[in-house]
Amino acid sequence: MAMSIAHLGPTGTYAEQAALAYLNQLKDAEQTILCPYPSIAQTLKTVARGKADVAVVPVENSIEGSVTITLDTLWQLEQLQIQLALVLPITHALLSHAVNLDAIVTVYSHPQALAQCQGWLEQFLPNVELIPTNSTTEALQHLDQESRSGAISSLRAAQIYNLPILAHAINDYPDNCTRFWVVSQRSVNRVSSVENTHTSLAFSLPANVPGALVKPLQIFAERGINLSRIESRPTKRSLGEYLFFLDLEADANSTLVQSAIAELATYTEILKLFGSYNVIQTQEREC
Amino acid sequence: MAMSIAHLGPTGTYAEQAALAYLNQLKDAEQTILCPYPSIAQTLKTVARGKADVAVVPVENSIEGSVTITLDTLWQLEQLQIQLALVLPITHALLSHAVNLDAIVTVYSHPQALAQCQGWLEQFLPNVELIPTNSTTEALQHLDQESRSGAISSLRAAQIYNLPILAHAINDYPDNCTRFWVVSQRSVNRVSSVENTHTSLAFSLPANVPGALVKPLQIFAERGINLSRIESRPTKRSLGEYLFFLDLEADANSTLVQSAIAELATYTEILKLFGSYNVIQTQEREC
Repeated sequence: MAMSIAHLGPTGTYAEQAALAYLNQLKDAEQTILCPYPSIAQTLKTVARGKADVAVVPVENSIEGSVTITLDTLWQLEQLQIQLALVLPITHALLSHAVNLDAIVTVYSHPQALAQCQGWLEQFLPNVELIPTNSTTEALQHLDQESRSGAISSLRAAQIYNLPILAHAINDYPDNCTRFWVVSQRSVNRVSSVENTHTSLAFSLPANVPGALVKPLQIFAERGINLSRIESRPTKRSLGEYLFFLDLEADANSTLVQSAIAELATYTEILKLFGSYNVIQTQEREC
Repeated sequence: MAMSIAHLGPTGTYAEQAALAYLNQLKDAEQTILCPYPSIAQTLKTVARGKADVAVVPVENSIEGSVTITLDTLWQLEQLQIQLALVLPITHALLSHAVNLDAIVTVYSHPQALAQCQGWLEQFLPNVELIPTNSTTEALQHLDQESRSGAISSLRAAQIYNLPILAHAINDYPDNCTRFWVVSQRSVNRVSSVENTHTSLAFSLPANVPGALVKPLQIFAERGINLSRIESRPTKRSLGEYLFFLDLEADANSTLVQSAIAELATYTEILKLFGSYNVIQTQEREC
Protein backbone atom coordinates (compact mmCIF):
# COMPACT_ATOMS: atom_id res chain seq x y z
CA MET A 1 0.00 0.00 0.00
CA ALA A 2 1.27 3.49 -0.84
CA MET A 3 2.53 5.65 2.03
CA SER A 4 0.90 9.09 2.26
CA ILE A 5 2.94 12.14 3.36
CA ALA A 6 0.98 15.21 4.49
CA HIS A 7 2.60 18.67 4.18
CA LEU A 8 1.71 22.36 3.92
CA GLY A 9 0.69 23.21 0.36
CA PRO A 10 -0.02 24.15 -2.35
CA THR A 11 2.71 22.40 -4.33
CA GLY A 12 6.15 24.03 -4.29
CA THR A 13 6.42 24.92 -0.57
CA TYR A 14 9.57 24.31 1.46
CA ALA A 15 7.53 21.73 3.43
CA GLU A 16 6.97 19.82 0.17
CA GLN A 17 10.72 20.07 -0.51
CA ALA A 18 11.38 18.58 2.95
CA ALA A 19 8.80 15.85 2.23
CA LEU A 20 10.70 15.01 -0.97
CA ALA A 21 13.98 14.90 0.98
CA TYR A 22 12.32 12.48 3.41
CA LEU A 23 11.10 10.42 0.47
CA ASN A 24 14.71 10.17 -0.76
CA GLN A 25 15.60 8.54 2.56
CA LEU A 26 13.03 5.80 2.05
CA LYS A 27 13.91 2.62 0.20
CA ASP A 28 10.59 2.18 -1.62
CA ALA A 29 10.17 5.82 -2.57
CA GLU A 30 7.97 5.10 -5.58
CA GLN A 31 5.14 3.91 -3.34
CA THR A 32 4.42 7.25 -1.73
CA ILE A 33 1.81 9.98 -2.26
CA LEU A 34 2.37 13.62 -1.29
CA CYS A 35 -0.75 15.24 0.21
CA PRO A 36 -0.75 19.07 0.45
CA TYR A 37 -2.93 20.68 3.18
CA PRO A 38 -3.84 24.36 3.65
CA SER A 39 -2.39 24.64 7.19
CA ILE A 40 0.24 23.03 9.43
CA ALA A 41 -2.38 22.21 12.08
CA GLN A 42 -4.48 20.33 9.51
CA THR A 43 -1.36 18.45 8.33
CA LEU A 44 -0.74 17.12 11.85
CA LYS A 45 -4.43 16.43 12.61
CA THR A 46 -4.67 14.37 9.41
CA VAL A 47 -1.99 12.01 10.73
CA ALA A 48 -3.53 11.91 14.22
CA ARG A 49 -6.84 10.83 12.61
CA GLY A 50 -5.09 8.14 10.56
CA LYS A 51 -5.90 9.79 7.20
CA ALA A 52 -2.19 10.05 6.28
CA ASP A 53 0.82 8.04 7.42
CA VAL A 54 3.28 10.82 8.19
CA ALA A 55 3.34 14.61 8.30
CA VAL A 56 6.39 16.69 7.45
CA VAL A 57 6.11 19.93 9.44
CA PRO A 58 8.47 22.89 10.01
CA VAL A 59 9.45 23.25 13.67
CA GLU A 60 12.15 25.92 13.73
CA ASN A 61 13.88 28.38 11.43
CA SER A 62 17.41 29.59 12.19
CA ILE A 63 16.36 33.24 11.78
CA GLU A 64 12.72 33.48 12.80
CA GLY A 65 12.71 30.78 15.47
CA SER A 66 9.95 28.37 16.45
CA VAL A 67 6.98 27.51 14.31
CA THR A 68 4.69 27.72 17.30
CA ILE A 69 1.63 26.12 15.69
CA THR A 70 3.68 22.91 15.29
CA LEU A 71 4.64 22.84 19.00
CA ASP A 72 1.13 23.74 20.19
CA THR A 73 -0.59 21.15 17.97
CA LEU A 74 1.87 18.42 18.98
CA TRP A 75 1.16 19.15 22.67
CA GLN A 76 -2.59 19.06 22.01
CA LEU A 77 -2.73 15.81 20.01
CA GLU A 78 -1.91 12.83 22.22
CA GLN A 79 -0.88 10.18 19.78
CA LEU A 80 1.96 11.59 17.65
CA GLN A 81 5.68 10.82 17.70
CA ILE A 82 8.70 12.23 15.86
CA GLN A 83 10.41 9.80 13.47
CA LEU A 84 13.14 12.01 12.01
CA ALA A 85 14.37 15.60 11.79
CA LEU A 86 15.40 17.17 8.47
CA VAL A 87 17.37 20.41 8.13
CA LEU A 88 16.71 22.21 4.85
CA PRO A 89 18.75 25.22 3.65
CA ILE A 90 16.42 28.06 2.67
CA THR A 91 17.26 30.46 -0.17
CA HIS A 92 14.47 32.86 -1.04
CA ALA A 93 13.89 34.36 -4.48
CA LEU A 94 11.58 37.12 -5.69
CA LEU A 95 9.34 35.74 -8.45
CA SER A 96 7.46 38.14 -10.72
CA HIS A 97 6.45 38.99 -14.30
CA ALA A 98 7.47 42.64 -13.66
CA VAL A 99 10.20 43.97 -15.97
CA ASN A 100 12.34 45.10 -13.04
CA LEU A 101 12.22 45.89 -9.30
CA ASP A 102 10.99 49.45 -9.93
CA ALA A 103 7.79 48.09 -11.44
CA ILE A 104 6.85 46.10 -8.30
CA VAL A 105 4.12 47.53 -6.08
CA THR A 106 3.09 44.45 -4.07
CA VAL A 107 5.00 41.51 -2.58
CA TYR A 108 3.26 38.39 -1.28
CA SER A 109 4.64 35.65 0.96
CA HIS A 110 4.26 33.72 4.19
CA PRO A 111 4.94 36.02 7.21
CA GLN A 112 8.08 33.95 8.10
CA ALA A 113 9.51 34.47 4.59
CA LEU A 114 8.65 38.19 4.60
CA ALA A 115 10.40 38.48 7.98
CA GLN A 116 13.47 36.60 6.71
CA CYS A 117 13.85 39.12 3.85
CA GLN A 118 12.85 42.30 5.72
CA GLY A 119 16.28 43.96 5.38
CA TRP A 120 16.42 43.28 1.63
CA LEU A 121 12.83 44.51 1.19
CA GLU A 122 13.58 47.73 3.13
CA GLN A 123 16.65 48.35 0.97
CA PHE A 124 15.37 47.49 -2.51
CA LEU A 125 11.57 47.75 -2.25
CA PRO A 126 10.96 50.25 0.59
CA ASN A 127 7.57 51.44 -0.73
CA VAL A 128 5.86 48.22 -1.79
CA GLU A 129 2.86 46.76 0.00
CA LEU A 130 3.74 43.51 1.80
CA ILE A 131 0.86 41.04 1.85
CA PRO A 132 1.13 37.98 4.13
CA THR A 133 -0.15 34.66 2.77
CA ASN A 134 -0.77 31.21 4.27
CA SER A 135 2.25 29.64 2.51
CA THR A 136 5.12 30.76 0.25
CA THR A 137 3.31 29.36 -2.80
CA GLU A 138 -0.29 30.41 -2.16
CA ALA A 139 -0.03 33.65 -4.19
CA LEU A 140 2.00 32.22 -7.10
CA GLN A 141 -0.99 31.24 -9.23
CA HIS A 142 -2.19 34.88 -9.23
CA LEU A 143 1.09 36.37 -10.49
CA ASP A 144 0.20 35.67 -14.14
CA GLN A 145 -2.68 38.16 -13.76
CA GLU A 146 -0.75 40.69 -11.66
CA SER A 147 2.22 41.99 -13.63
CA ARG A 148 3.25 44.48 -10.91
CA SER A 149 3.17 41.95 -8.07
CA GLY A 150 5.93 39.67 -6.81
CA ALA A 151 6.09 36.77 -4.38
CA ILE A 152 8.90 35.46 -2.20
CA SER A 153 9.33 31.75 -2.76
CA SER A 154 11.96 29.20 -3.85
CA LEU A 155 13.75 28.54 -7.16
CA ARG A 156 11.94 25.21 -7.21
CA ALA A 157 8.57 27.00 -7.03
CA ALA A 158 9.69 29.28 -9.91
CA GLN A 159 10.15 26.17 -12.05
CA ILE A 160 6.87 24.54 -10.99
CA TYR A 161 4.79 27.70 -11.61
CA ASN A 162 6.90 28.79 -14.61
CA LEU A 163 7.63 32.23 -13.14
CA PRO A 164 10.58 34.56 -13.88
CA ILE A 165 13.14 35.09 -11.08
CA LEU A 166 13.61 38.81 -10.49
CA ALA A 167 16.09 38.47 -7.61
CA HIS A 168 17.71 35.50 -5.91
CA ALA A 169 19.20 34.78 -2.46
CA ILE A 170 17.34 37.75 -0.99
CA ASN A 171 17.21 36.40 2.59
CA ASP A 172 18.99 38.74 5.00
CA TYR A 173 21.13 36.01 6.54
CA PRO A 174 22.82 33.52 4.19
CA ASP A 175 22.77 30.73 6.81
CA ASN A 176 19.02 30.40 6.70
CA CYS A 177 17.82 26.88 7.50
CA THR A 178 14.53 25.34 8.57
CA ARG A 179 14.30 22.22 10.68
CA PHE A 180 11.36 19.91 9.91
CA TRP A 181 9.98 16.98 11.87
CA VAL A 182 8.62 13.83 10.27
CA VAL A 183 5.74 12.83 12.54
CA SER A 184 3.66 9.63 12.63
CA GLN A 185 1.18 7.97 14.96
CA ARG A 186 2.73 6.60 18.12
CA SER A 187 1.65 3.07 17.32
CA VAL A 188 3.74 2.92 14.12
CA ASN A 189 6.64 0.54 14.63
CA ARG A 190 10.01 1.96 13.86
CA VAL A 191 12.86 -0.16 12.60
CA SER A 192 16.01 1.52 13.83
CA SER A 193 19.33 -0.25 13.95
CA VAL A 194 21.30 2.82 15.03
CA GLU A 195 21.10 4.85 18.19
CA ASN A 196 19.05 8.05 17.91
CA THR A 197 20.86 11.34 18.51
CA HIS A 198 17.93 13.46 19.72
CA THR A 199 14.90 13.23 22.01
CA SER A 200 12.10 15.78 22.29
CA LEU A 201 9.75 16.25 25.21
CA ALA A 202 7.56 18.91 26.80
CA PHE A 203 6.21 19.55 30.29
CA SER A 204 4.22 21.91 32.44
CA LEU A 205 5.21 22.74 36.02
CA PRO A 206 2.91 22.55 39.05
CA ALA A 207 3.81 25.99 40.46
CA ASN A 208 5.64 29.12 39.45
CA VAL A 209 8.14 29.51 42.30
CA PRO A 210 11.78 30.70 42.23
CA GLY A 211 13.90 27.97 40.71
CA ALA A 212 11.00 25.86 39.38
CA LEU A 213 12.72 25.51 36.01
CA VAL A 214 16.25 25.12 37.45
CA LYS A 215 15.55 21.65 38.84
CA PRO A 216 14.39 20.08 35.52
CA LEU A 217 17.44 21.55 33.75
CA GLN A 218 19.78 20.35 36.52
CA ILE A 219 18.56 16.78 36.05
CA PHE A 220 20.02 16.77 32.54
CA ALA A 221 23.12 18.87 33.37
CA GLU A 222 24.10 16.52 36.20
CA ARG A 223 24.07 13.60 33.76
CA GLY A 224 26.04 15.48 31.10
CA ILE A 225 23.08 15.43 28.70
CA ASN A 226 23.15 18.52 26.50
CA LEU A 227 19.93 20.38 25.75
CA SER A 228 20.08 21.55 22.18
CA ARG A 229 16.97 23.66 22.63
CA ILE A 230 14.52 25.00 25.21
CA GLU A 231 11.34 26.79 24.15
CA SER A 232 8.56 28.14 26.34
CA ARG A 233 4.95 28.28 25.16
CA PRO A 234 1.90 29.62 26.99
CA THR A 235 -0.30 27.00 28.69
CA LYS A 236 -3.22 29.09 27.36
CA ARG A 237 -4.74 28.99 30.85
CA SER A 238 -3.48 32.38 32.01
CA LEU A 239 -0.77 34.91 31.14
CA GLY A 240 2.51 33.90 32.78
CA GLU A 241 1.95 30.12 32.83
CA TYR A 242 4.17 28.16 30.49
CA LEU A 243 4.93 24.79 28.95
CA PHE A 244 8.57 24.01 28.21
CA PHE A 245 9.70 22.13 25.09
CA LEU A 246 13.15 20.52 25.37
CA ASP A 247 15.34 18.84 22.77
CA LEU A 248 18.01 16.56 24.29
CA GLU A 249 21.10 15.35 22.47
CA ALA A 250 20.59 11.75 23.56
CA ASP A 251 18.46 8.67 22.93
CA ALA A 252 15.44 8.13 25.20
CA ASN A 253 16.21 4.40 25.18
CA SER A 254 19.54 4.89 26.98
CA THR A 255 19.48 4.14 30.71
CA LEU A 256 20.94 7.61 31.38
CA VAL A 257 18.02 9.41 29.71
CA GLN A 258 15.49 7.00 31.18
CA SER A 259 16.71 7.77 34.72
CA ALA A 260 16.63 11.50 33.91
CA ILE A 261 13.06 11.29 32.61
CA ALA A 262 11.95 9.28 35.64
CA GLU A 263 13.37 11.99 37.92
CA LEU A 264 11.93 14.77 35.74
CA ALA A 265 8.44 13.26 36.10
CA THR A 266 8.59 13.88 39.86
CA TYR A 267 8.87 17.67 39.27
CA THR A 268 6.48 18.18 36.37
CA GLU A 269 2.69 18.51 36.22
CA ILE A 270 2.22 16.98 32.74
CA LEU A 271 5.15 15.38 30.88
CA LYS A 272 4.92 14.30 27.24
CA LEU A 273 7.59 12.41 25.30
CA PHE A 274 7.61 12.99 21.55
CA GLY A 275 10.17 10.26 20.79
CA SER A 276 13.81 9.86 19.77
CA TYR A 277 15.12 10.41 16.26
CA ASN A 278 18.08 11.30 14.09
CA VAL A 279 18.75 14.55 12.25
CA ILE A 280 19.51 14.61 8.53
CA GLN A 281 21.07 17.61 6.80
CA THR A 282 19.55 17.78 3.33
CA GLN A 283 21.58 19.14 0.38
CA GLU A 284 25.13 20.39 0.74
CA ARG A 285 25.08 23.55 2.80
CA GLU A 286 25.77 23.09 6.52
CA CYS A 287 23.63 25.07 8.93
CA MET B 1 5.97 70.13 23.83
CA ALA B 2 3.54 67.34 22.99
CA MET B 3 4.62 63.76 23.70
CA SER B 4 4.39 61.41 20.71
CA ILE B 5 3.38 57.76 21.18
CA ALA B 6 4.18 55.37 18.31
CA HIS B 7 2.06 52.21 17.87
CA LEU B 8 1.02 49.66 15.24
CA GLY B 9 -1.76 51.10 13.07
CA PRO B 10 -4.01 51.90 11.34
CA THR B 11 -6.30 53.40 13.98
CA GLY B 12 -8.35 50.95 16.05
CA THR B 13 -5.67 48.30 16.77
CA TYR B 14 -5.21 46.74 20.19
CA ALA B 15 -1.80 48.50 20.28
CA GLU B 16 -3.62 51.85 19.95
CA GLN B 17 -5.93 50.76 22.75
CA ALA B 18 -2.87 50.01 24.91
CA ALA B 19 -1.40 53.40 23.95
CA LEU B 20 -4.63 55.06 25.14
CA ALA B 21 -4.44 53.08 28.40
CA TYR B 22 -0.87 54.38 28.83
CA LEU B 23 -2.09 57.90 28.09
CA ASN B 24 -4.64 57.55 30.91
CA GLN B 25 -1.74 56.91 33.29
CA LEU B 26 -0.11 60.20 32.37
CA LYS B 27 -1.00 63.37 34.21
CA ASP B 28 -0.87 65.72 31.21
CA ALA B 29 -2.67 63.40 28.81
CA GLU B 30 -3.95 66.20 26.57
CA GLN B 31 -0.42 66.98 25.38
CA THR B 32 0.12 63.70 23.55
CA ILE B 33 -0.06 62.63 19.90
CA LEU B 34 -0.72 59.04 18.80
CA CYS B 35 1.40 58.03 15.77
CA PRO B 36 0.32 54.84 13.94
CA TYR B 37 3.02 52.89 12.02
CA PRO B 38 2.61 50.00 9.56
CA SER B 39 4.81 47.56 11.52
CA ILE B 40 6.00 46.88 15.06
CA ALA B 41 9.66 47.09 13.96
CA GLN B 42 9.10 50.56 12.51
CA THR B 43 7.34 51.63 15.72
CA LEU B 44 10.43 50.74 17.79
CA LYS B 45 12.93 52.12 15.26
CA THR B 46 11.06 55.45 15.26
CA VAL B 47 11.75 55.81 18.99
CA ALA B 48 15.37 54.65 18.64
CA ARG B 49 15.88 57.40 16.02
CA GLY B 50 14.29 60.01 18.28
CA LYS B 51 11.32 60.61 15.95
CA ALA B 52 8.80 59.65 18.67
CA ASP B 53 9.06 59.72 22.46
CA VAL B 54 7.68 56.30 23.31
CA ALA B 55 6.49 53.18 21.52
CA VAL B 56 3.73 50.94 22.84
CA VAL B 57 4.42 47.43 21.49
CA PRO B 58 2.87 43.99 22.14
CA VAL B 59 5.34 41.57 23.69
CA GLU B 60 3.30 38.51 24.61
CA ASN B 61 -0.19 37.10 24.26
CA SER B 62 -1.55 34.60 26.79
CA ILE B 63 -2.63 32.21 24.00
CA GLU B 64 -0.22 32.72 21.10
CA GLY B 65 2.90 33.54 23.11
CA SER B 66 5.75 35.91 22.25
CA VAL B 67 5.57 38.63 19.68
CA THR B 68 9.01 37.74 18.41
CA ILE B 69 9.56 40.83 16.27
CA THR B 70 9.39 42.93 19.46
CA LEU B 71 12.06 40.83 21.22
CA ASP B 72 14.33 40.66 18.16
CA THR B 73 14.10 44.41 17.46
CA LEU B 74 14.75 45.31 21.10
CA TRP B 75 17.89 43.12 21.09
CA GLN B 76 19.05 44.74 17.83
CA LEU B 77 18.52 48.38 18.82
CA GLU B 78 20.97 49.43 21.51
CA GLN B 79 19.35 52.42 23.08
CA LEU B 80 15.87 51.41 24.21
CA GLN B 81 14.49 50.78 27.70
CA ILE B 82 11.15 49.58 29.07
CA GLN B 83 9.21 52.15 31.10
CA LEU B 84 6.05 50.23 31.89
CA ALA B 85 4.12 47.03 31.09
CA LEU B 86 0.39 47.07 30.35
CA VAL B 87 -1.84 44.00 30.28
CA LEU B 88 -4.88 44.40 28.03
CA PRO B 89 -7.79 41.90 27.94
CA ILE B 90 -8.50 40.89 24.34
CA THR B 91 -12.03 40.10 23.15
CA HIS B 92 -12.31 39.52 19.42
CA ALA B 93 -15.40 40.23 17.33
CA LEU B 94 -16.28 39.37 13.74
CA LEU B 95 -17.13 42.58 11.87
CA SER B 96 -18.96 42.39 8.54
CA HIS B 97 -21.77 43.81 6.40
CA ALA B 98 -22.89 40.24 5.60
CA VAL B 99 -26.48 39.43 6.64
CA ASN B 100 -25.39 36.35 8.60
CA LEU B 101 -22.50 33.90 9.04
CA ASP B 102 -23.64 31.75 6.10
CA ALA B 103 -23.00 34.64 3.72
CA ILE B 104 -19.33 35.00 4.72
CA VAL B 105 -16.73 33.63 2.28
CA THR B 106 -13.58 35.45 3.46
CA VAL B 107 -12.22 36.45 6.88
CA TYR B 108 -9.32 38.88 7.30
CA SER B 109 -7.17 39.51 10.36
CA HIS B 110 -3.68 39.57 11.81
CA PRO B 111 -2.26 36.00 12.00
CA GLN B 112 -2.23 36.20 15.85
CA ALA B 113 -5.95 37.06 15.91
CA LEU B 114 -6.80 34.34 13.35
CA ALA B 115 -4.86 31.86 15.51
CA GLN B 116 -6.66 33.00 18.68
CA CYS B 117 -10.04 32.27 17.04
CA GLN B 118 -9.10 29.11 15.09
CA GLY B 119 -11.47 26.82 17.04
CA TRP B 120 -14.42 29.19 16.55
CA LEU B 121 -13.59 29.59 12.85
CA GLU B 122 -13.38 25.80 12.36
CA GLN B 123 -16.74 25.37 14.08
CA PHE B 124 -18.78 28.20 12.57
CA LEU B 125 -16.97 29.11 9.33
CA PRO B 126 -15.15 25.90 8.31
CA ASN B 127 -15.13 26.71 4.58
CA VAL B 128 -14.16 30.39 4.47
CA GLU B 129 -10.86 31.64 3.14
CA LEU B 130 -8.67 33.06 5.95
CA ILE B 131 -6.54 35.97 4.77
CA PRO B 132 -3.76 37.20 7.07
CA THR B 133 -3.20 40.97 7.32
CA ASN B 134 -0.53 43.20 8.89
CA SER B 135 -2.82 44.34 11.72
CA THR B 136 -6.35 43.62 13.00
CA THR B 137 -7.62 46.86 11.43
CA GLU B 138 -5.82 46.87 8.05
CA ALA B 139 -8.70 45.20 6.16
CA LEU B 140 -11.55 47.13 7.83
CA GLN B 141 -11.65 49.95 5.30
CA HIS B 142 -12.33 47.43 2.50
CA LEU B 143 -15.34 45.77 4.18
CA ASP B 144 -17.73 48.44 2.86
CA GLN B 145 -16.97 47.20 -0.66
CA GLU B 146 -16.93 43.49 0.22
CA SER B 147 -20.33 42.46 1.55
CA ARG B 148 -19.34 38.76 1.86
CA SER B 149 -16.09 39.42 3.76
CA GLY B 150 -15.53 39.72 7.49
CA ALA B 151 -12.64 40.79 9.68
CA ILE B 152 -11.65 39.82 13.22
CA SER B 153 -11.06 42.95 15.27
CA SER B 154 -12.29 44.68 18.44
CA LEU B 155 -15.62 46.27 19.43
CA ARG B 156 -13.75 49.57 19.55
CA ALA B 157 -12.68 49.13 15.90
CA ALA B 158 -16.32 48.37 14.99
CA GLN B 159 -17.29 51.79 16.37
CA ILE B 160 -14.40 53.64 14.71
CA TYR B 161 -15.04 52.10 11.27
CA ASN B 162 -18.83 52.02 11.73
CA LEU B 163 -19.08 48.30 11.02
CA PRO B 164 -21.78 45.81 12.14
CA ILE B 165 -20.79 43.16 14.71
CA LEU B 166 -21.74 39.72 13.40
CA ALA B 167 -20.34 37.76 16.36
CA HIS B 168 -18.67 38.76 19.61
CA ALA B 169 -16.22 37.13 22.06
CA ILE B 170 -15.17 34.63 19.42
CA ASN B 171 -11.69 33.97 20.87
CA ASP B 172 -11.25 30.30 21.78
CA TYR B 173 -10.00 31.03 25.30
CA PRO B 174 -11.91 33.63 27.35
CA ASP B 175 -8.76 34.58 29.34
CA ASN B 176 -7.09 36.15 26.35
CA CYS B 177 -4.71 38.98 27.30
CA THR B 178 -1.86 40.75 25.59
CA ARG B 179 1.05 42.30 27.48
CA PHE B 180 2.47 45.49 25.97
CA TRP B 181 5.69 47.32 26.79
CA VAL B 182 6.01 51.10 26.80
CA VAL B 183 9.52 51.72 25.47
CA SER B 184 11.59 54.93 25.36
CA GLN B 185 15.18 55.90 24.67
CA ARG B 186 17.58 54.92 27.42
CA SER B 187 18.54 58.54 28.08
CA VAL B 188 15.01 59.55 29.11
CA ASN B 189 14.93 60.25 32.83
CA ARG B 190 12.31 58.39 34.74
CA VAL B 191 10.68 59.79 37.83
CA SER B 192 9.76 56.79 39.92
CA SER B 193 8.98 57.06 43.59
CA VAL B 194 7.97 53.42 43.99
CA GLU B 195 10.01 50.26 43.61
CA ASN B 196 9.63 48.50 40.26
CA THR B 197 8.21 45.00 40.27
CA HIS B 198 9.81 43.63 37.09
CA THR B 199 13.15 43.67 35.27
CA SER B 200 13.79 42.41 31.74
CA LEU B 201 17.12 41.34 30.28
CA ALA B 202 18.53 39.15 27.55
CA PHE B 203 21.83 37.35 26.98
CA SER B 204 23.73 35.04 24.68
CA LEU B 205 25.98 32.26 26.00
CA PRO B 206 29.60 31.67 24.94
CA ALA B 207 29.24 27.91 24.33
CA ASN B 208 26.55 25.30 24.04
CA VAL B 209 27.66 22.76 26.66
CA PRO B 210 25.59 20.63 29.07
CA GLY B 211 24.26 22.88 31.80
CA ALA B 212 25.16 26.19 30.10
CA LEU B 213 21.70 27.58 30.87
CA VAL B 214 21.43 26.02 34.34
CA LYS B 215 24.06 28.33 35.86
CA PRO B 216 22.34 31.62 34.83
CA LEU B 217 19.02 30.31 36.19
CA GLN B 218 20.65 29.13 39.43
CA ILE B 219 21.98 32.64 40.07
CA PHE B 220 18.43 33.91 40.41
CA ALA B 221 17.02 30.80 42.13
CA GLU B 222 19.73 30.95 44.84
CA ARG B 223 18.67 34.51 45.64
CA GLY B 224 14.95 33.68 45.69
CA ILE B 225 14.31 35.88 42.65
CA ASN B 226 11.43 34.47 40.62
CA LEU B 227 11.64 34.42 36.84
CA SER B 228 8.22 35.21 35.49
CA ARG B 229 9.30 34.29 31.96
CA ILE B 230 12.10 32.76 29.90
CA GLU B 231 12.03 32.89 26.13
CA SER B 232 14.65 31.63 23.69
CA ARG B 233 15.25 33.31 20.32
CA PRO B 234 17.69 32.32 17.57
CA THR B 235 20.96 34.32 17.48
CA LYS B 236 20.45 34.27 13.67
CA ARG B 237 24.09 33.10 13.33
CA SER B 238 23.34 29.41 12.98
CA LEU B 239 20.60 26.92 13.76
CA GLY B 240 20.83 25.81 17.38
CA GLU B 241 22.36 29.01 18.82
CA TYR B 242 20.06 31.00 21.07
CA LEU B 243 19.56 34.21 22.98
CA PHE B 244 17.58 34.02 26.21
CA PHE B 245 15.10 36.70 27.31
CA LEU B 246 14.32 36.72 31.05
CA ASP B 247 11.73 38.65 33.04
CA LEU B 248 12.54 38.84 36.76
CA GLU B 249 10.05 39.70 39.47
CA ALA B 250 12.39 42.23 41.12
CA ASP B 251 13.83 45.73 40.71
CA ALA B 252 17.24 46.01 39.04
CA ASN B 253 18.13 48.75 41.51
CA SER B 254 17.97 46.38 44.49
CA THR B 255 21.34 45.14 45.75
CA LEU B 256 20.09 41.55 45.42
CA VAL B 257 19.41 41.89 41.70
CA GLN B 258 22.57 43.92 41.15
CA SER B 259 24.70 41.14 42.65
CA ALA B 260 22.83 38.57 40.54
CA ILE B 261 23.41 40.57 37.36
CA ALA B 262 27.11 41.03 38.19
CA GLU B 263 27.47 37.25 38.60
CA LEU B 264 25.37 36.59 35.49
CA ALA B 265 27.73 38.76 33.43
CA THR B 266 30.59 36.35 34.17
CA TYR B 267 28.71 33.52 32.38
CA THR B 268 27.21 35.35 29.41
CA GLU B 269 28.67 36.41 26.07
CA ILE B 270 26.51 39.50 25.56
CA LEU B 271 24.18 40.75 28.32
CA LYS B 272 21.62 43.49 27.75
CA LEU B 273 19.42 45.10 30.40
CA PHE B 274 16.11 46.48 29.20
CA GLY B 275 15.23 48.21 32.48
CA SER B 276 12.89 47.85 35.46
CA TYR B 277 9.24 48.73 35.41
CA ASN B 278 5.79 48.13 36.88
CA VAL B 279 2.90 46.21 35.36
CA ILE B 280 -0.55 47.76 35.04
CA GLN B 281 -3.69 45.68 34.43
CA THR B 282 -5.94 47.78 32.21
CA GLN B 283 -9.73 47.49 32.49
CA GLU B 284 -11.47 45.12 34.91
CA ARG B 285 -10.75 41.58 33.82
CA GLU B 286 -7.83 39.85 35.54
CA CYS B 287 -5.51 37.80 33.37
